[in-house]
Amino acid sequence: MAYRPKLTSASRPLTTEVEALNERGEALPTPIAGEHPLTLYVDKREIVTLMTLGQAPEALAIGYLRNQRLVRSIEEIAEVQVDWETDSVAIVTRKAIKGLTEKMKKRTVTTGCGQGTVFGDLMEEIESLRLRDDVRLTEDTLYGLLEAVRHRETIYKSAGAVHGCALADRAEILYFVEDVGRHNAVDAIAGQMWLDRVDGSDKIFYTTGRLTSEMVIKAAQMRIPFLVSRSGLTQMGYEIASKVGITMIGRAVNKHYLLFTGRHRFVRQIMPTMLA
Amino acid sequence: MAYRPKLTSASRPLTTEVEALNERGEALPTPIAGEHPLTLYVDKREIVTLMTLGQAPEALAIGYLRNQRLVRSIEEIAEVQVDWETDSVAIVTRKAIKGLTEKMKKRTVTTGCGQGTVFGDLMEEIESLRLRDDVRLTEDTLYGLLEAVRHRETIYKSAGAVHGCALADRAEILYFVEDVGRHNAVDAIAGQMWLDRVDGSDKIFYTTGRLTSEMVIKAAQMRIPFLVSRSGLTQMGYEIASKVGITMIGRAVNKHYLLFTGRHRFVRQIMPTMLA
Repeated sequence: MAYRPKLTSASRPLTTEVEALNERGEALPTPIAGEHPLTLYVDKREIVTLMTLGQAPEALAIGYLRNQRLVRSIEEIAEVQVDWETDSVAIVTRKAIKGLTEKMKKRTVTTGCGQGTVFGDLMEEIESLRLRDDVRLTEDTLYGLLEAVRHRETIYKSAGAVHGCALADRAEILYFVEDVGRHNAVDAIAGQMWLDRVDGSDKIFYTTGRLTSEMVIKAAQMRIPFLVSRSGLTQMGYEIASKVGITMIGRAVNKHYLLFTGRHRFVRQIMPTMLA
Repeated sequence: MAYRPKLTSASRPLTTEVEALNERGEALPTPIAGEHPLTLYVDKREIVTLMTLGQAPEALAIGYLRNQRLVRSIEEIAEVQVDWETDSVAIVTRKAIKGLTEKMKKRTVTTGCGQGTVFGDLMEEIESLRLRDDVRLTEDTLYGLLEAVRHRETIYKSAGAVHGCALADRAEILYFVEDVGRHNAVDAIAGQMWLDRVDGSDKIFYTTGRLTSEMVIKAAQMRIPFLVSRSGLTQMGYEIASKVGITMIGRAVNKHYLLFTGRHRFVRQIMPTMLA
């Protein structure tokens, strides 16, 4: 059996209810999304405090370390212990991380908020990435995935204020994570993929959030060739997507979409009329 | 005349156009929002790289330093020079910032992405904040402001993928800033308020984004008693808003809204039928 770190399983209640007055003066019980600080400690050293919905805190912690390049494989992690009494997660490595101080310093100056991205080094890494070119996404599969997303029960539907991310194998959703920070949702999926030894190279990454530089970088780092969003994109998201040749689709809702980059992996529906 | 630092005025073109294929196979010219790295240097020391739309980079840099508590007043800043050839902004202080290294270190461990918040110390500061209690927001004024926001020409309308923030004096919008990161939009407004010596204590802060802990903290730090959002809120946003007693209104669109906290400052419309 594949190696697995020792983990807690400590998700939080995801919504809570408060009272609000609407424009008719009615007091309405209103569900709101959870938001909790979670401070990461690696081998007792404080790394960062994330504000999270708390749906998948162990996977989030692992994925954060993965996407920040603080650990290189799941085998480096011995334990991940979330404790909501102290709002903390203690990660124990099997062998102390080399150069943690140096890595932390680099992170400092490059973490922003547009923010939340680790830059510089990452761009170099991105340049050398190659995504698989022998995989295809058909329009039918895309529509099937959008349909699956639409039918999903979500925190967003009940309380709003969260972003959702999914990893899909064709139209089948493997993971669906929501969080108050969209970077957290991506990181949690990255962590879960490591835990389950899921290879991204033929998968689809779906997000309700915008396709910014960071989103494209993270998808590419996970070797995922297909990136689909309900929302729009930014200039740098577009430039990086063009550079790594990822197949990027925006404004994907119902039977509408905009295909921006990596067109060679996308197969449009052949219309029945064209066959006649 | 009030003191003003020496400033560049270097906004970027805010949208650019790329080609996308839609579901009918048509190639559409599609406007997308700019996103540019902007690295802040304070007295030649690298502080952070922000990903920004670039609408108000000087105000953003000043507001970032203000909201991170790295400078305490606009008088501490001598120059703010944005240079897009190097994607950088050089800030020169009039007197070196005391304990910058210490402050930077604190920032490291507490900056997350949910992220983008500075925590810990801030919460203590928040506890001691008092917002004005002798100011009122009427429903008419709220509707007037929402109307003003709706008629505004925005990047969001043309390209999406940005958040907008506004500072309003009753229904009149004083500033309206959009950015790829909503934290940047708030920071840019904080910077502009300092530059123009605008007091927040009777103003309304409007945002298209969600009311998370950080949003509430920043509004309260600027002493703004009214916080209005088109979107929803999170549990911690609610808890902090309750604690500081800010008047917080969510889901504010057209003639609908939900009043969550600080009800004593809000005056509902008296319906004509009630006067009859």
